[in-house]
Amino acid sequence: MGQTVANPVLIEVTRGHRVESRHRGAIAVFDADDRCVFSLGNVDEPVFPRSAVKPIQALPLIESGAADALGYGNRELSLAQASHGGEPDHVATAAAMLGAAGLDESALQCGVQWPTHTASAAKLSAGGKKPSALHNNCSGKHAGFLAVASHKGYRTEGYIDPDHPVQRMVRNALESLTGAAHTADRRGVDGCSIPTYAVPLAALAIGFARFGSGRGLTPERAVAARRIYSAAVAEPFHIAGTGRFCTEIIAALQGDALVKTGAEGVFCGTMPDSGLGIAIKCDDGASRAAEAIMANILLVLRRQDDGVLRRWANQPLLNRRAIPVGEIRLARGALADLRP
Amino acid sequence: MGQTVANPVLIEVTRGHRVESRHRGAIAVFDADDRCVFSLGNVDEPVFPRSAVKPIQALPLIESGAADALGYGNRELSLAQASHGGEPDHVATAAAMLGAAGLDESALQCGVQWPTHTASAAKLSAGGKKPSALHNNCSGKHAGFLAVASHKGYRTEGYIDPDHPVQRMVRNALESLTGAAHTADRRGVDGCSIPTYAVPLAALAIGFARFGSGRGLTPERAVAARRIYSAAVAEPFHIAGTGRFCTEIIAALQGDALVKTGAEGVFCGTMPDSGLGIAIKCDDGASRAAEAIMANILLVLRRQDDGVLRRWANQPLLNRRAIPVGEIRLARGALADLRP
Repeated sequence: MGQTVANPVLIEVTRGHRVESRHRGAIAVFDADDRCVFSLGNVDEPVFPRSAVKPIQALPLIESGAADALGYGNRELSLAQASHGGEPDHVATAAAMLGAAGLDESALQCGVQWPTHTASAAKLSAGGKKPSALHNNCSGKHAGFLAVASHKGYRTEGYIDPDHPVQRMVRNALESLTGAAHTADRRGVDGCSIPTYAVPLAALAIGFARFGSGRGLTPERAVAARRIYSAAVAEPFHIAGTGRFCTEIIAALQGDALVKTGAEGVFCGTMPDSGLGIAIKCDDGASRAAEAIMANILLVLRRQDDGVLRRWANQPLLNRRAIPVGEIRLARGALADLRP
Repeated sequence: MGQTVANPVLIEVTRGHRVESRHRGAIAVFDADDRCVFSLGNVDEPVFPRSAVKPIQALPLIESGAADALGYGNRELSLAQASHGGEPDHVATAAAMLGAAGLDESALQCGVQWPTHTASAAKLSAGGKKPSALHNNCSGKHAGFLAVASHKGYRTEGYIDPDHPVQRMVRNALESLTGAAHTADRRGVDGCSIPTYAVPLAALAIGFARFGSGRGLTPERAVAARRIYSAAVAEPFHIAGTGRFCTEIIAALQGDALVKTGAEGVFCGTMPDSGLGIAIKCDDGASRAAEAIMANILLVLRRQDDGVLRRWANQPLLNRRAIPVGEIRLARGALADLRP
């Protein structure tokens, strides 16, 4: 009946004095030399990383010369790796990225999405407006793909197809960093219609270790990776948005880490100073658990916190009258073998 | 590390040709004589049933005489056991229930909630309005509690407290039907601020078997249970809302079953003709899985379907351009031992 050996419980959700729900999953922490620093659960099973690999998917935007040619700065490069909330500044930056490439939102193939940022959605709604593809959380990544196509003289139609030159460049970057084959049998279609490839969690962690540290990369690619990393830590609002995990954690860690969420309970991250890459998959796809796990891992690895990590690592659950009724917490002993 | 023996995988979420996420959980199907018809996973572990026991929690509304005294019909009695979407008709019925008891929304202690029905929330927002406690998905249940308090001459303040006479009546009904102790050590606070008591899944299934069939109940209680059941199947819109699982399934089954969702992946149901009660807990709290499990169970037990059950039992996943990218499906063999 599916997975026969269960991954361990990583996160518990309590109510009163009891555990109400449990989230199982796997964790991989590796360095750029393929050394496992910590693992829990099955880290060899391929998982779809979804949006968690957006920082790596942004490499062709730098490497093709498109970012320089179009004058993209930190905000644009942060949005190019974002799962943003569709807030007005996100939408404006995505529109400007397309404009610089001589395109507009009609070129986007990511589909229309209401802003996940509630107040922005309410404002649109109150104004009698509808969202566009610019509000799609992936619009910055897609604008980046279109920028590459435009700059290189590729056709812009079909830029989401697996065999389009832009998607080949993206796939090559992913294969090169993770060391994992990105073959058609491992392919699925992502929420925004581009291909997503199932990759073992260990390979994702290694890929992020390389991405953050530059180890094992060509000098050109190491520079490109550094630029994408620097853009995210310089403009954390543009990688997610108001009150969001990635934005708050990246800002709080002040340049020490890049973390990126993916749908269905995936999280990736890198800490360049220690040369580590982190990859998490919550079996059931729950973001609340993946976020709490990532915060707990960073708490152990970083050993210092101004309160933001702790707040995400152990979240009180409030009911509709803001009464605390339980908490989201790390399962006892889950990270006992993780060393700073 | 939490639960040591893992419950089985019940539902798989696929993308392309691969399983992307997995939901584990437990299932109990019992009759009113405490006989287990089918069980999977640990059905002895106490779980918080949350809103899934609202039909049983509505018994005092009938038994106290309040429903008759206030002229409540099927719509009011369906809303009294609802987790509704805050659509205009839900809000109007909740307001009318309170009005009949000489009260208004200021008496509600469930807290304010935006309608979960997106279009209703957007309409509120577009009109520059804010939601009230009437929009809370539990407002009908709370209006019912207040009706009992008002009719019996109890104070209405504090009707959510575990020791308020109304909550004692509710607790007695739950204990009597499930046969499980509802003691303080098993108590948590629900999202709407009333007590919720952790009960083994087996006891919940037995309670619903008794509720639906009337077996093992006093004649008065059997009549009250029948009235609550009949109200839900007569007015399925009022128990949930447009496009919602409970509403669609109850309507499609044309009186043969009452199903009720609860937060954190719980589902209860009863099929009076076969005398069965059903209780489900998805370990990780996912509604998408609990709904799919319930639909699959009903498909087996009922042996006929006009397509609605099948649609919920095996749901295609569409991405933001409505391209099918995967599905939510029953794990192979999960219900192999369930017989019609």
